[in-house]
Amino acid sequence: MDNLNGHALRKMSIEELSGLCEELRGKIKDAVISNGGHLSSNLGMVELTVALHYVFDFPRDKVVFDVGHQCYTHKLLSGRESGFPTLRKRGGLSGFPKREESAYDCYNTGHAGTSVSAALGIAKARDLAGDDYNVIAVIGDGSFNNGLVYEAFNSLKPLGTNILVIINDNGMSISPTVGSMHEYLEVLSADAEEQHHKTRRADIFEKFGFEYDGVYDGNDIAAMIDVLTGIKAKLKDRSVILHVLTKKGKGYSFCEDNPEATHGIGGKQSAACVEYSSVLGEKLCELAQKDDKIVAVTAAMTGSLGLSDFFEKFPDRAMDVGICEEHATILCAAMAAQGLKPYYAVYSTFLQRSFDEIVIDICSQNLPVTLCIDRAGISGADGETHQGVFDLSFLSFIPNMTVAVPKDKNEFAAMIEFSATFGGPLAIRYPRACTHDFGSVMPIVAGTWEKLSHGDGRVAVLACGERAIACAVHAAEKASAGGIAVSVINARFVKPLDERMLSSFSEGLIVTVEDNMLAGGFGSMIAEYFSDSGKRVKIFAYRDSFIEQGGVEELMNDYGLNADDIAEYILKSV
Amino acid sequence: MDNLNGHALRKMSIEELSGLCEELRGKIKDAVISNGGHLSSNLGMVELTVALHYVFDFPRDKVVFDVGHQCYTHKLLSGRESGFPTLRKRGGLSGFPKREESAYDCYNTGHAGTSVSAALGIAKARDLAGDDYNVIAVIGDGSFNNGLVYEAFNSLKPLGTNILVIINDNGMSISPTVGSMHEYLEVLSADAEEQHHKTRRADIFEKFGFEYDGVYDGNDIAAMIDVLTGIKAKLKDRSVILHVLTKKGKGYSFCEDNPEATHGIGGKQSAACVEYSSVLGEKLCELAQKDDKIVAVTAAMTGSLGLSDFFEKFPDRAMDVGICEEHATILCAAMAAQGLKPYYAVYSTFLQRSFDEIVIDICSQNLPVTLCIDRAGISGADGETHQGVFDLSFLSFIPNMTVAVPKDKNEFAAMIEFSATFGGPLAIRYPRACTHDFGSVMPIVAGTWEKLSHGDGRVAVLACGERAIACAVHAAEKASAGGIAVSVINARFVKPLDERMLSSFSEGLIVTVEDNMLAGGFGSMIAEYFSDSGKRVKIFAYRDSFIEQGGVEELMNDYGLNADDIAEYILKSV
Repeated sequence: MDNLNGHALRKMSIEELSGLCEELRGKIKDAVISNGGHLSSNLGMVELTVALHYVFDFPRDKVVFDVGHQCYTHKLLSGRESGFPTLRKRGGLSGFPKREESAYDCYNTGHAGTSVSAALGIAKARDLAGDDYNVIAVIGDGSFNNGLVYEAFNSLKPLGTNILVIINDNGMSISPTVGSMHEYLEVLSADAEEQHHKTRRADIFEKFGFEYDGVYDGNDIAAMIDVLTGIKAKLKDRSVILHVLTKKGKGYSFCEDNPEATHGIGGKQSAACVEYSSVLGEKLCELAQKDDKIVAVTAAMTGSLGLSDFFEKFPDRAMDVGICEEHATILCAAMAAQGLKPYYAVYSTFLQRSFDEIVIDICSQNLPVTLCIDRAGISGADGETHQGVFDLSFLSFIPNMTVAVPKDKNEFAAMIEFSATFGGPLAIRYPRACTHDFGSVMPIVAGTWEKLSHGDGRVAVLACGERAIACAVHAAEKASAGGIAVSVINARFVKPLDERMLSSFSEGLIVTVEDNMLAGGFGSMIAEYFSDSGKRVKIFAYRDSFIEQGGVEELMNDYGLNADDIAEYILKSV
Repeated sequence: MDNLNGHALRKMSIEELSGLCEELRGKIKDAVISNGGHLSSNLGMVELTVALHYVFDFPRDKVVFDVGHQCYTHKLLSGRESGFPTLRKRGGLSGFPKREESAYDCYNTGHAGTSVSAALGIAKARDLAGDDYNVIAVIGDGSFNNGLVYEAFNSLKPLGTNILVIINDNGMSISPTVGSMHEYLEVLSADAEEQHHKTRRADIFEKFGFEYDGVYDGNDIAAMIDVLTGIKAKLKDRSVILHVLTKKGKGYSFCEDNPEATHGIGGKQSAACVEYSSVLGEKLCELAQKDDKIVAVTAAMTGSLGLSDFFEKFPDRAMDVGICEEHATILCAAMAAQGLKPYYAVYSTFLQRSFDEIVIDICSQNLPVTLCIDRAGISGADGETHQGVFDLSFLSFIPNMTVAVPKDKNEFAAMIEFSATFGGPLAIRYPRACTHDFGSVMPIVAGTWEKLSHGDGRVAVLACGERAIACAVHAAEKASAGGIAVSVINARFVKPLDERMLSSFSEGLIVTVEDNMLAGGFGSMIAEYFSDSGKRVKIFAYRDSFIEQGGVEELMNDYGLNADDIAEYILKSV
């Protein structure tokens, strides 16, 4: 299959292509079941991708996959089949498009809604170079809700260039797609069943300068080749939107029946553990029962954030706004301005989209919105675009913000309880899995830390969050074996710092540990605190580079968080 | 006028109301000419705002002004007339809506596109509280291009609430509005001239669940009262978009003829000086003449960023995408991925919107996009939502990013020249005005600093950017008078740091100065660098609070950057 390219595909009959599709499906399923990854979305994309490779001339023509997790077939058809078993492994093939990996990947994606903007930029560069290749954006109906798409559509005419946008409509984000644009796509689809597609029009898209063509069965390989061939001939003169319906999970009944659960699945190696998200869901339901001011907002991933029960129990007070992280943030701020108590649950990496709204809408108005930041720290196999390692850095310098980091699920539950009566912006960040239990929880007061162990007065290790504390405790054991008893502190608030405790340290060496970038993170605030004091501060955090895909523990280890290095540093420094 | 409220307005005849409008216009003009501020946009909004206060019952009803700089009439009609001469002054009335200032301001704005999301949040809170007041968003056609509006529209139906959105269409952002949505608004307006408005429909908006009503003359007070009265009666049952045309600069021919130049004007006290933006424009034209890979992108403020000439000379290579900072960022990344050399010019505060795209699209792909960040540091009279004091903090922890800060316009020109052959993501941040000249420019090499003066080996002052350097030089003179000769360093790259120079310092006390927040900024990186060294580091930067409106120098002084404090610290610490 590594020798398969467009040229080879074009020699195959429809029957042979259908057989190839089944073969591709098998390879995708095998790799994902073994390594984890995005299953249902890729199963739905097989025929469409084969047809794209049949009709277009990659890598001369360019295709941008929105979000990018649906690119597996594209990888298999672009010389990467032999590497496919390494999918999402350390050093292996990425689960997303990667320019570094293949000339067939022209633009890296990972966050939603960027494909149309990127396709326009590529097309504009093509025009300026006097070239004439085709540029295609493939975007799901979930991503299609993102405001970036509207911004890009708005500039199609002013940019004066031509692209093809394929709407891959499977009715799902990670959760079922919501919103009026989705409803509109559904109307178009319903029309399609009643009349021949050639007579249909979608005036919204035409107003932005696109010719609209749809709705087609994206899992029908012959139809896809046919319609793409027709469109390809037009792309010199105009921009086209092709609307296709695909079946998420296509070909595997379990996936077809459970598209949300099989959107992304963990690899074989996933350990059984409690997820912080389930603690959030449980605790928030409990609080919401007592306090009708509590509302919850998500951006298209209710289930994986633990809020399915909340959404069922309190439908009026639960809002999934689709993949619209910025809008979600403002909605929370505005509800808080009117006296409600909003919780915005979101993955750390996607919260980056809300940065400006956190500064301006939430913090400059000092509103009591609670950000429940899941998948914080290294998230693992999704790689560079999904690591949640920037949040401490981009939240801690925002005035009025309080940043909490629980040591374990019990402290997390206590923090959620604390948040219910807290009167300002609050961020609580936590990884996916809770695998430790650090004992009883000291009452939560903003800006207070907890001493987990008392040392001999020479070294204090300040760690925030479960993973860092586990690392610190382990390092302390090793240091103790080497003759140095260190104090270990649960620095459960990164902002404000516990200045009372900080000012009480007699230790001359302060070591900090965090599951975050070094620059701008917890340790750098400690370094700043002690900068004029004569104390030495040593920071263990991630150095200045993007963190690739891999296992959480191996990445933490390799990028700067491991007990051996910390213990070694302590032993040689005292 | 401080006693004017809706009740009083409703007793006035149309003639009296027209007279009032002229009176309001005079007050706005007087205050803006004296204090600086947004002139043309406010002149255009007078009749519409008077009509809103006539028809609706504020503050029980709620109005959110998008961006917010068009709220002056609203302020004059809500008990703030006597304070109006303090507009935009330190301690005076804000030029934007402020909840802290009046119950009539229900939601603070400052950045574009947030009003519809905020109105939906307020309306949702109203519904949950069982209340029945009206919620209105007033949004200009410029802001209407922003993706947030689409995200909010998309969730109108799922949220199941009712709001009124007023599109205040004056054909302008700060620059003339661009894009297909604007073109569509123009089509609706053209239709309006040909047929009676009642028969018109705008199916785009209807698909999102709005009834559309337009187009009306927003400067016709009688018509506005009439149409708003009609719409108010409907708002219990549905959401409505009211489309009105207003004349930017209305009532003053100079403003009407020069809406871009009079959008915002400086106060009387503005000193004559060179603007960094004009250096950017000149230099970029010069480089673009030689290198046809250079392209420039702006988000609706081409003129104020100095790029008008570039846009005239290189129309194919110049793109104003409207108020779409995120889309602009991705467009640049994609063009860079295809070998172009994009420059994205933007105000520091608005770059916050692009944070995620800077991380993911530009930096994780390590693409040679140059961010030209204007109005960095304290920007002054626009207050909390417009200070450019976060950029060093939110850029410096992003891997692959290089951050440059010129000492003056000559070094800025050299940095622009340097950028043309630089192969990775580069941010150059500068304030609006260049008022110093620090002599000859040392050749620009990434991560190299310049010693401006040599001290006696006890104290080194590291400063980045013109304002900080001016402060440092001044402090050095004072310290010298006190018997301590300090070294002053032009730390022109905040990332990477000049580690060669840092490691060569014999000085035991390092003082840093920057026009940025303390947390995560330049000084905190220096503190981290020396954290394990025994050297003392003292950081002068802005402490953890939002910086209010006022004069640039008085704010710098009061919030932590002044030569006296620095000199005093040095003299007492050595």
